[in-house]
Amino acid sequence: MIELRSDNTAGVAPEILAAIQAANSGSALAYGGDDLTAHLHEVVRSVFEHPTARAFPVTSGTAANSLALSASTPPWGAVLCHPSAHIITAEGGATSLFGGGAVMQGVDGDHALIDADRLRATLGSVRWGDPHESQPSVLSLTLPSDHGTVYQPDEIALLAGIAHEHGLRVHVDGARIANAVAALGCSPAEVTWRAGVDVLSLGATKNGALSAEAIVVFDDRIAEELVYRTKRSGHVTSKMRFQSAQVAAYLTDGLWLRLATHANEQMATLAAALESVDGVRLMERVDVNLAFVELSAAAAEALPDAGILCYRMTDSSVRLVTSWQTTAEDVVEATAGFRRAASAS
Amino acid sequence: MIELRSDNTAGVAPEILAAIQAANSGSALAYGGDDLTAHLHEVVRSVFEHPTARAFPVTSGTAANSLALSASTPPWGAVLCHPSAHIITAEGGATSLFGGGAVMQGVDGDHALIDADRLRATLGSVRWGDPHESQPSVLSLTLPSDHGTVYQPDEIALLAGIAHEHGLRVHVDGARIANAVAALGCSPAEVTWRAGVDVLSLGATKNGALSAEAIVVFDDRIAEELVYRTKRSGHVTSKMRFQSAQVAAYLTDGLWLRLATHANEQMATLAAALESVDGVRLMERVDVNLAFVELSAAAAEALPDAGILCYRMTDSSVRLVTSWQTTAEDVVEATAGFRRAASAS
Amino acid sequence: MIELRSDNTAGVAPEILAAIQAANSGSALAYGGDDLTAHLHEVVRSVFEHPTARAFPVTSGTAANSLALSASTPPWGAVLCHPSAHIITAEGGATSLFGGGAVMQGVDGDHALIDADRLRATLGSVRWGDPHESQPSVLSLTLPSDHGTVYQPDEIALLAGIAHEHGLRVHVDGARIANAVAALGCSPAEVTWRAGVDVLSLGATKNGALSAEAIVVFDDRIAEELVYRTKRSGHVTSKMRFQSAQVAAYLTDGLWLRLATHANEQMATLAAALESVDGVRLMERVDVNLAFVELSAAAAEALPDAGILCYRMTDSSVRLVTSWQTTAEDVVEATAGFRRAASAS
Amino acid sequence: MIELRSDNTAGVAPEILAAIQAANSGSALAYGGDDLTAHLHEVVRSVFEHPTARAFPVTSGTAANSLALSASTPPWGAVLCHPSAHIITAEGGATSLFGGGAVMQGVDGDHALIDADRLRATLGSVRWGDPHESQPSVLSLTLPSDHGTVYQPDEIALLAGIAHEHGLRVHVDGARIANAVAALGCSPAEVTWRAGVDVLSLGATKNGALSAEAIVVFDDRIAEELVYRTKRSGHVTSKMRFQSAQVAAYLTDGLWLRLATHANEQMATLAAALESVDGVRLMERVDVNLAFVELSAAAAEALPDAGILCYRMTDSSVRLVTSWQTTAEDVVEATAGFRRAASAS
Repeated sequence: MIELRSDNTAGVAPEILAAIQAANSGSALAYGGDDLTAHLHEVVRSVFEHPTARAFPVTSGTAANSLALSASTPPWGAVLCHPSAHIITAEGGATSLFGGGAVMQGVDGDHALIDADRLRATLGSVRWGDPHESQPSVLSLTLPSDHGTVYQPDEIALLAGIAHEHGLRVHVDGARIANAVAALGCSPAEVTWRAGVDVLSLGATKNGALSAEAIVVFDDRIAEELVYRTKRSGHVTSKMRFQSAQVAAYLTDGLWLRLATHANEQMATLAAALESVDGVRLMERVDVNLAFVELSAAAAEALPDAGILCYRMTDSSVRLVTSWQTTAEDVVEATAGFRRAASAS
Repeated sequence: MIELRSDNTAGVAPEILAAIQAANSGSALAYGGDDLTAHLHEVVRSVFEHPTARAFPVTSGTAANSLALSASTPPWGAVLCHPSAHIITAEGGATSLFGGGAVMQGVDGDHALIDADRLRATLGSVRWGDPHESQPSVLSLTLPSDHGTVYQPDEIALLAGIAHEHGLRVHVDGARIANAVAALGCSPAEVTWRAGVDVLSLGATKNGALSAEAIVVFDDRIAEELVYRTKRSGHVTSKMRFQSAQVAAYLTDGLWLRLATHANEQMATLAAALESVDGVRLMERVDVNLAFVELSAAAAEALPDAGILCYRMTDSSVRLVTSWQTTAEDVVEATAGFRRAASAS
Repeated sequence: MIELRSDNTAGVAPEILAAIQAANSGSALAYGGDDLTAHLHEVVRSVFEHPTARAFPVTSGTAANSLALSASTPPWGAVLCHPSAHIITAEGGATSLFGGGAVMQGVDGDHALIDADRLRATLGSVRWGDPHESQPSVLSLTLPSDHGTVYQPDEIALLAGIAHEHGLRVHVDGARIANAVAALGCSPAEVTWRAGVDVLSLGATKNGALSAEAIVVFDDRIAEELVYRTKRSGHVTSKMRFQSAQVAAYLTDGLWLRLATHANEQMATLAAALESVDGVRLMERVDVNLAFVELSAAAAEALPDAGILCYRMTDSSVRLVTSWQTTAEDVVEATAGFRRAASAS
Repeated sequence: MIELRSDNTAGVAPEILAAIQAANSGSALAYGGDDLTAHLHEVVRSVFEHPTARAFPVTSGTAANSLALSASTPPWGAVLCHPSAHIITAEGGATSLFGGGAVMQGVDGDHALIDADRLRATLGSVRWGDPHESQPSVLSLTLPSDHGTVYQPDEIALLAGIAHEHGLRVHVDGARIANAVAALGCSPAEVTWRAGVDVLSLGATKNGALSAEAIVVFDDRIAEELVYRTKRSGHVTSKMRFQSAQVAAYLTDGLWLRLATHANEQMATLAAALESVDGVRLMERVDVNLAFVELSAAAAEALPDAGILCYRMTDSSVRLVTSWQTTAEDVVEATAGFRRAASAS
């Protein structure tokens, strides 16, 4: 079977596993008081070209997002995000839990990307200071979006600028940020703090790590809150050095971008091939390692027998995701599988 | 330097690391939909001799405790525990956060163990049904206690019986449960559900795992809530198989008890040796791998130079903890170090 | 100036003030342990023809809604309501605060009323039991809606039936329920529990009471939670008898419906008159005591000088609300005022 | 029967009822946008001699306390108070609910008053900045205490000074603050902001108001939060003018102190008389309108038949409370009743 359900299903990259093994020597202070966690801060500052950035290793993307947001909004705030954002659709209300009852509010736009005019309109009609209305406090951008599309750096800067004008902070849900940075060919700084981002959920697990993500913070006040918020939510692991070692290895020598580039390239090849398959249609542009495909219900039904594991969105559409583990052979076989399924139905 | 600060400072046991490596093959459904997590449930049911027990892997003890408690108490409840319990002293209010504002209430007793008469008195004076008063809803026992002492199975049964008579649920904070089971020489069932325990925080990290713990649930209603509570607090890792594989390996073939027995034995040897050191006094009985030692402030001050890393409780007392990694040589050297420090001062 | 801003701006009805004065004799147990509160339960049971209904007096509509909802949803639930509902737009996230991070989710429909097909579609696409997705747990209907429109009893029964099929509870935000009952000419039971409603926010303040509302509960499990939830949110007043006396007087001998009928009639007269004013257009049907009026920006601007106090929705629309205090003269003058404003511009 | 259960059982003072009636004319903006609420701010500034103090009217003491504290502590904070404080013993965990999981921590002292040395010791042993430990963030003093004792102004200043040195804010639970101010014969400013108090729960209901209290804020940052926190907890009543009018009348021309002085004097007389009754012993000094009395269980049992309504604390102790409504005849009869009960048993 060709695995295209999610990049979450992939294993741990050899370099990451090696980092875990290397970390397993001697004893070290618990809860982040170790040398490897200290080193992670340095790595993050270097990779993001930011002198005071701080990293908070956590073990899930939901933790990274909801903790980052809870440290950025008052309980009476509203987090603005695209209606398709993971924080609304797939985290069980984590942001409202950690945010003390803060709410999420959708701002729409094509390609699962927030439209600047709509953002302006939304913020322009707020009754600021009126406690009856949840007060927009954070703009959360998903990069890449849950539809696999990316903002350009100047688009992020535009949206962040509008948000800052109104006193909002800017968060990026970067569960697949490596795929976006690789696709954009820009520096990590360009799509984050240089574009106005205050705090980033830096994903690593989908791209080769073992339950390791990090909140990367460019605003000291957010960092100060996270010291407490991470601990009291159970997200300060005692053997943090094993998460820190992973994230540091991941960001070192471009490993994260190599792994992501590989995943992106497999998807680019696959998507190009699918365009020539009758009865199969790409529903969204393919910027990174995700594709959404429309096909007949019968064809969708036939996919498992054609050797393809993927996520069924509706009767007649599926989501495909490649990962750092997807091989060129997988892509060839997946294309053949789609052809069989489409023609069989 | 001899490491006696905490068992948290130790590394990952070779068998656990091997289990991680073995889990790293092929792809697997994320968020616990994998075979290794299914296997973990079977292992837990076998080890605890309970037909329907369920395991929820998490990555920290604070997560295990606060999530287990939040699924056991209404928001208006009070969690009863010893004043020295970790959930009061060292989790930053996690139980109140996840419990929707539930409170914690101390019930005292010697040796950091809750006294049955005091528990009866506390429960006997509650104005049940009066919403002005936080309603006791869970009894949380720490096994071993934060002072390194253990309840006997019949003591747990007695306390749990009193709690159940008043409608409370019973939780065990078992961050070091392996050390207690090893010390008591009883079966895991005897100190948990057979004694009336409804939910257990099963620690593994301090005893050789890599950020892996599990909530073991003997009450289906608690389990039903945990499905949601673990996810929305960011404690359902996407690559859960890597936590599940660890906990399963840990519980298989008695690994957890072998590791814990080793740690206990090193401490028993060390404690016995310290009793013959002038100027050093054990402040509490030593049931497992923890000891609390009184010595002069000057001696305490001299410990680092004597090659000993440990946690200073007060001016004139320290906490010592051995781990699965502590060697017989460590114990010999530590004893010598204490002797030097005590005599030098 | 003619007061049409809100029914919240009106005073206390003489009968209600008399009830307060009558309650002010002798001493009485605090926190609802008094005879007047006991009497209120009887009144509610009689008026709603329900043998076990219970009333929880509170002092604001936001309290009634958010407490009722918090006792009806688990923290991981989603409350479904119309996007225009007060609980989303005007309570500062109270439902998420009291609901432990529960979220609100809009289900659209014309005239600010939830459409049954959309409700079916929403519930039909839920991944039930998947903790990634907030689980719909309560349907909250606003009666009358925030646009002043009402559901017919059979429409409520249809929506409640769909909700119950999926295990949801049904709440009615009845901040102006008297106006709806008066307009529908039905019994209070018909639009509440007989139609499937489990819990009702019964407004009284907008219709003549002094900071007195009540949560009316038809489901004992909700009532049991409210005993605790009302207290710990500060919504059990010590001198509850003064709220209970008001609500009892309000519901006795049809006072609530007389006051509401008066307000509705003034609005019916005003709305009919406005239809003949050039440049003024009713934007929504007028079922109760609210009207939404479109007019030129210049005319809207001229309203204050024309003697009319009302709430400006947009540049070119206003909301008008009559109350139990609005007089026939007010209606005549308001009509003249609109005519002047519309022609002056 | 002589009513000595609580001052909560008394009715509404004539002056307060007159203020309600006077407020009931014309229409007024809802939610505090009215002239009477604006006037209340002026009254508070004048009575407390503070140029920028702000008042937030609420309808219960629990609301006042828990909202004031929630605006003064971060969620990871600990509120320090005497173990007998109402916020711990009688508010169902309201502070933890509104405080986002903040905890309460007892600091003991004689006469239900916090001891300065213990406060210093508690704060001196905190691991500041360590997120494992709940961080003390507010000192909450109860004035008068739940045992009816009062701090002297210099005692408050001493405790507040210690708190401020460590970065804590200072709150006073003044559910009966009028009784304390009357007893101390000081100015309201002396026991509040001049002594270092940042926010005060100003009770009025126990002393003659109709479900009206106010949070009086001397620190603008607390006030800014309360704008939102009061609303989203349902504690901004729409007809706020009726609460504002009460509190303003209460504070005007010394009414609050006249009512409180009366209650205090009745208790002083009663307590003096009880000292001469055999078998009856005052357990605590009597500073205001509360007394705690020890007597035989048989005598306590006989009190209702002797015409006395009071609150039974234990088998052999009762609490007595006088109010603005207690008469000289009540005191005479109560004394006689105690004598009968004590001798009958």
